[in-house]
Amino acid sequence: MRLLVMNPNTTVSMTASIRATATAVAAPGTQIIAAEPLWGPESIEGHFDGFLSAAAVLDRLATLDTPFDALVMAGFGEPGREGAQELLDVPVLDITESAAQMAMMLGRTYGIVTTLDRSVPQIRDRLLTAGLLQRCAAVHGTGLGVLELEADPERTVEVITETAREVVRAGAEVICLGCGGMAGLQERVAAALGVPVVDGVAAAVKFAEAVVGLGLTTSTARSFAPPRPKAIGSWPLSAHLPLGPARGGSRNTEFSPQTSDI
Amino acid sequence: MRLLVMNPNTTVSMTASIRATATAVAAPGTQIIAAEPLWGPESIEGHFDGFLSAAAVLDRLATLDTPFDALVMAGFGEPGREGAQELLDVPVLDITESAAQMAMMLGRTYGIVTTLDRSVPQIRDRLLTAGLLQRCAAVHGTGLGVLELEADPERTVEVITETAREVVRAGAEVICLGCGGMAGLQERVAAALGVPVVDGVAAAVKFAEAVVGLGLTTSTARSFAPPRPKAIGSWPLSAHLPLGPARGGSRNTEFSPQTSDI
Amino acid sequence: MRLLVMNPNTTVSMTASIRATATAVAAPGTQIIAAEPLWGPESIEGHFDGFLSAAAVLDRLATLDTPFDALVMAGFGEPGREGAQELLDVPVLDITESAAQMAMMLGRTYGIVTTLDRSVPQIRDRLLTAGLLQRCAAVHGTGLGVLELEADPERTVEVITETAREVVRAGAEVICLGCGGMAGLQERVAAALGVPVVDGVAAAVKFAEAVVGLGLTTSTARSFAPPRPKAIGSWPLSAHLPLGPARGGSRNTEFSPQTSDI
Amino acid sequence: MRLLVMNPNTTVSMTASIRATATAVAAPGTQIIAAEPLWGPESIEGHFDGFLSAAAVLDRLATLDTPFDALVMAGFGEPGREGAQELLDVPVLDITESAAQMAMMLGRTYGIVTTLDRSVPQIRDRLLTAGLLQRCAAVHGTGLGVLELEADPERTVEVITETAREVVRAGAEVICLGCGGMAGLQERVAAALGVPVVDGVAAAVKFAEAVVGLGLTTSTARSFAPPRPKAIGSWPLSAHLPLGPARGGSRNTEFSPQTSDI
Amino acid sequence: MRLLVMNPNTTVSMTASIRATATAVAAPGTQIIAAEPLWGPESIEGHFDGFLSAAAVLDRLATLDTPFDALVMAGFGEPGREGAQELLDVPVLDITESAAQMAMMLGRTYGIVTTLDRSVPQIRDRLLTAGLLQRCAAVHGTGLGVLELEADPERTVEVITETAREVVRAGAEVICLGCGGMAGLQERVAAALGVPVVDGVAAAVKFAEAVVGLGLTTSTARSFAPPRPKAIGSWPLSAHLPLGPARGGSRNTEFSPQTSDI
Amino acid sequence: MRLLVMNPNTTVSMTASIRATATAVAAPGTQIIAAEPLWGPESIEGHFDGFLSAAAVLDRLATLDTPFDALVMAGFGEPGREGAQELLDVPVLDITESAAQMAMMLGRTYGIVTTLDRSVPQIRDRLLTAGLLQRCAAVHGTGLGVLELEADPERTVEVITETAREVVRAGAEVICLGCGGMAGLQERVAAALGVPVVDGVAAAVKFAEAVVGLGLTTSTARSFAPPRPKAIGSWPLSAHLPLGPARGGSRNTEFSPQTSDI
Repeated sequence: MRLLVMNPNTTVSMTASIRATATAVAAPGTQIIAAEPLWGPESIEGHFDGFLSAAAVLDRLATLDTPFDALVMAGFGEPGREGAQELLDVPVLDITESAAQMAMMLGRTYGIVTTLDRSVPQIRDRLLTAGLLQRCAAVHGTGLGVLELEADPERTVEVITETAREVVRAGAEVICLGCGGMAGLQERVAAALGVPVVDGVAAAVKFAEAVVGLGLTTSTARSFAPPRPKAIGSWPLSAHLPLGPARGGSRNTEFSPQTSDI
Repeated sequence: MRLLVMNPNTTVSMTASIRATATAVAAPGTQIIAAEPLWGPESIEGHFDGFLSAAAVLDRLATLDTPFDALVMAGFGEPGREGAQELLDVPVLDITESAAQMAMMLGRTYGIVTTLDRSVPQIRDRLLTAGLLQRCAAVHGTGLGVLELEADPERTVEVITETAREVVRAGAEVICLGCGGMAGLQERVAAALGVPVVDGVAAAVKFAEAVVGLGLTTSTARSFAPPRPKAIGSWPLSAHLPLGPARGGSRNTEFSPQTSDI
Repeated sequence: MRLLVMNPNTTVSMTASIRATATAVAAPGTQIIAAEPLWGPESIEGHFDGFLSAAAVLDRLATLDTPFDALVMAGFGEPGREGAQELLDVPVLDITESAAQMAMMLGRTYGIVTTLDRSVPQIRDRLLTAGLLQRCAAVHGTGLGVLELEADPERTVEVITETAREVVRAGAEVICLGCGGMAGLQERVAAALGVPVVDGVAAAVKFAEAVVGLGLTTSTARSFAPPRPKAIGSWPLSAHLPLGPARGGSRNTEFSPQTSDI
Repeated sequence: MRLLVMNPNTTVSMTASIRATATAVAAPGTQIIAAEPLWGPESIEGHFDGFLSAAAVLDRLATLDTPFDALVMAGFGEPGREGAQELLDVPVLDITESAAQMAMMLGRTYGIVTTLDRSVPQIRDRLLTAGLLQRCAAVHGTGLGVLELEADPERTVEVITETAREVVRAGAEVICLGCGGMAGLQERVAAALGVPVVDGVAAAVKFAEAVVGLGLTTSTARSFAPPRPKAIGSWPLSAHLPLGPARGGSRNTEFSPQTSDI
Repeated sequence: MRLLVMNPNTTVSMTASIRATATAVAAPGTQIIAAEPLWGPESIEGHFDGFLSAAAVLDRLATLDTPFDALVMAGFGEPGREGAQELLDVPVLDITESAAQMAMMLGRTYGIVTTLDRSVPQIRDRLLTAGLLQRCAAVHGTGLGVLELEADPERTVEVITETAREVVRAGAEVICLGCGGMAGLQERVAAALGVPVVDGVAAAVKFAEAVVGLGLTTSTARSFAPPRPKAIGSWPLSAHLPLGPARGGSRNTEFSPQTSDI
Repeated sequence: MRLLVMNPNTTVSMTASIRATATAVAAPGTQIIAAEPLWGPESIEGHFDGFLSAAAVLDRLATLDTPFDALVMAGFGEPGREGAQELLDVPVLDITESAAQMAMMLGRTYGIVTTLDRSVPQIRDRLLTAGLLQRCAAVHGTGLGVLELEADPERTVEVITETAREVVRAGAEVICLGCGGMAGLQERVAAALGVPVVDGVAAAVKFAEAVVGLGLTTSTARSFAPPRPKAIGSWPLSAHLPLGPARGGSRNTEFSPQTSDI
């Protein structure tokens, strides 16, 4: 099966890191393709960024000409997922909910370590809407911005571990990494902490495999029925925009599907 | 004071109707200006439409060159409000929450009559996130699409009234009209029903006057701190798009501020 | 329009201060009249005081011979409001709920600074019943009794500010002043804190203007239907009581309506 | 031990019926004394009635010159209990909460049959505040007013049974009689229904015996600390009111303690 | 009436202590019989222990040949109660819920002091399922294992008192002792703390007397209908097991009914 | 990897059917082994059955001498899972929670079709404790007992489909089959209904693969720490019981591991 992993921001180095994590955990036979939007913010740190990203991700999905069996949305707490569920007829997994759900399989409570404090309420609101907040013991920020995570990996692991300890003291039995940019650090943090650590990208990839494996997809019964036909001015936006090169390297316009079983 | 009322879709006739309602209820001294996005869907009927609209509204707000003292967002249940709160330093009122809040001032419980059944969960989720769901007795759809509301006003009032009766039987003591396109019908529905009927546009205009009247604005303490400086590809979008005329008439590119006290 | 602002206790100096705040924020054309009960406790600091005050307020309302367009109840967390809603055919605004609702228009969460710690659970229960508790981050007491607030205004502002800081640390993005006796201090506290501060009296006056401005009033559908006709022994009480002068000055038996627009 | 059972309204025949129920279930050695307020409404059917009754009950308690070991408040859903808990140093049991609590000992869910539909929200709010709403499946009104209950006992039992059947269909495994005036009917309704029926007066008497039997009383730690000393105008009210005879017979000014074990 | 108090573990000295507490609070005319399972864990400290105990308790109940009027289950937070409710036609009281319910009669909030920290989530889950969690301010562990409680009673009282102080600071107005093995210590802890302390065994005995006194028993309407007839391999287990002497003394195979009124 | 699927009852034909479903959905490389308890009820239809089964399942797990990488517990709503989580150091998946979690990946709400009405509250309580109830629209019983499901498969599919339609009308966007004995029917029901149908056994197998695939297991931090060492009378029970042949065929004492990829 082919899974599309969507980095919600335009930073190509983050797409690469997310692709690497997804590829590392994919089952034999699962191909990972990864992409980022053609326009929009280089990182998502608040609602304004998130709403721009939501539209940019939907634009990217609407114009992508490669088939895939499921979508993994690799932004933590950003909006847009329900729109993708309406647009696509394949299942859509979100790293916020996937991390929380996998954590709930491993302990009675979980907690989240994220980037900036300003993202904390946004993540809690996503979990509330998802019906997954009840067993969330705490969500804490590390104070690191999204793009700072890559700057000094040693320091990043230290700060995440320290924040995770607070979250455990607040009652969490399992820790979720609350940013797509933290993908790949789970093992080092878990080793230091002594409790299971779930990375949302990894969890969402495995859940996508599970859902596709059972031949299931999003219900069209009510909330996620396909969009109604109507006039949408300037849509798709990317067809009208003079797009330049992406930040952090050349834009990933052709996919680089990688199978994990080679 | 000057209030900007934002129709979230590009249908200019709906902007006109929303402006008329807002103007009718504005206090002496309150100027109403109204606008709609420069691109995006002609109506909002689901999450996909809503997320495109959210970005289009933020684009419009970012590029508008007229000052205003508060923003009224005239879409019922669509996302985007938190982004506007981050972007602007004036208060932002949302017709979903304003309708619910005013209803809660008038009765112990309220209910909402909206357009399509598919919007019901979306509205409930907005109220849940807003912390206003507890006293909501029911949200029911009429089965009418957003743009059908204008087609046959007599029939529209009848269908809304009939649906409102169900909502009252489900326990609501006050009815909210759950679509910006229903603005102006509240009195006729109330007369038929015998319980108070709140129109969100009217409620939000009065609340905007209240908040501005006290010199208050959005807290920047945490959730709604201003967006962080960063690279945003192709932003603002409208600066790069070849925009044509709006649907339903010429685009409302210049504002037509109207004072209600003449 | 004429708004009646009801101080729930018999301390006339507090009525004056509440009237001053209400008058200061009233729109041009809004007349503020203020009153206090003819009997009952000089301050409300607990349930016993509150229940006596509730009956005394209802007695006052039942015997008042001046017309008004809306009632503002200026006690924070005391019972009685629902009785006034049944008794009157004009809208009734309560400063506890009004403060919370206005705060929710300004931030994702709010917190309350009140007088004594013993009032904290009572306020939380009011918010719970009102369906407004979900976004309340914290309610803290200053340790100052209601009548101590007036004693040393400098100290009062300091203590409120210090307590408000704790409430902000507990997650509140907006602060509500949780006692009618704190009316008028919001600007000084806000200046020191850096987050918006809402005074309930001011909020309720503006909301009363909003509701009256739309021609709406309390639903009689169920919870707040008028009282049923029945024998009520010794009612109204004040007609039978040998009432002496009020505490804190001569009883305010004749109203001193003041228009804010002179 | 001596238990005071307080009928919240002034209808003496209802006091007699409540006393009879209480006496019938009291343990050997338990003396029941019963009283009603000296002023206030003849029945409680809404918030206005309830708030007057609350003050009248507190007045009665403040002036009663007979000792008792616990108070049973025999009004269903009326306010005032927390005031009595502050005022008295003996335990206070309320028939709303006692009925719900005993029902929760007998089944996973319970439901309530009350008098008028307008009391339904008031009862739900009491249960919400009490932390007992979660397992309440439904509260339904019979349409009978409080004083109508005594008019035709056969009809009353029939209507209660019919309403109770609806409540069972709504998921209740146990039924509570939701009015002090229904005391004594539980066995006949239970026989017809086939599920346990709890009368609040009976439950509260037994719980009062339980609490007194363990030497426990209300915590003064925070919510129910004694009232603070202060000036209260015209208090106690009954000392100043020219009280006439009670409705429904001569006022029960001297108690008629009856032991259940003679 | 005869109450059976069931110690969920096989430690006979704990049965004796529970019997002593139950006997001390029983009303005249109430006979207390006490028992423990014939097999299973010597103490309950986690879910595994609890599930074994649940089956062992049901086995004991199914094979006991002495009549009783109500069952008191003396384990704090262990599962099994609903099974006993299905099996028996007499009422079943559980010390976790009874303690919480009595505490809610005495204060607005309560808290629990238990043994090990690992039991805290288990107790919270029981309260959640019971619909009694809303007014629970905190559950804290003392760090003492169940069988350590008896080792040094002075130290036990000290540690419980210290932990109870934390729970009061966390908002509890009443304290519940959260282990059957703490029965009998409530008065000493209460004297040190200054807030009411409820022992679950004592509360459940009094509630059993209350329920039996009213002639009520478990509803068979839905959740607690009798078990359906079916093949159950090796049931009852104790009939097939080669049972040896119980831990902590000879097994209590014959009951030692003690009336409290001699 | 090897997954142990545990049928909680002793009916061997149901073990076979569960094994077949699990095997059919297992990934290449996943071996399914299946077992049932050595004693206990032939079906689980209520709490009493469930608590016996819980102990029997734990006994089976404690004495099994074959290694496995994860446990799938194939009973819907029965207790015991937390005990297995304490006992084992491999992950434990439960079909109730797994069905709900997979359904939440496919729609905003889900509903459950189960066997008898008496199981409905038990299932709701499991979901409540699991923190998964918020998005559950309804749980309905078909009226079919567990062992009746196999009797007439055509009729079973019809009745499930009819009940599922009610659940969809109650707001569910996805249906979960609420009994291990319904495993294998999901495709036929889905085809008739038009909304996705999730079988818990299938979901749990895929989630077990996901969790094992990431190298994760149950947190031992608090709730699910290993059982403390202690004396447990007659444990393991099966070592002392004279076990006869299982119902529905010879007892499955040796495993029949089947790989799904042959």
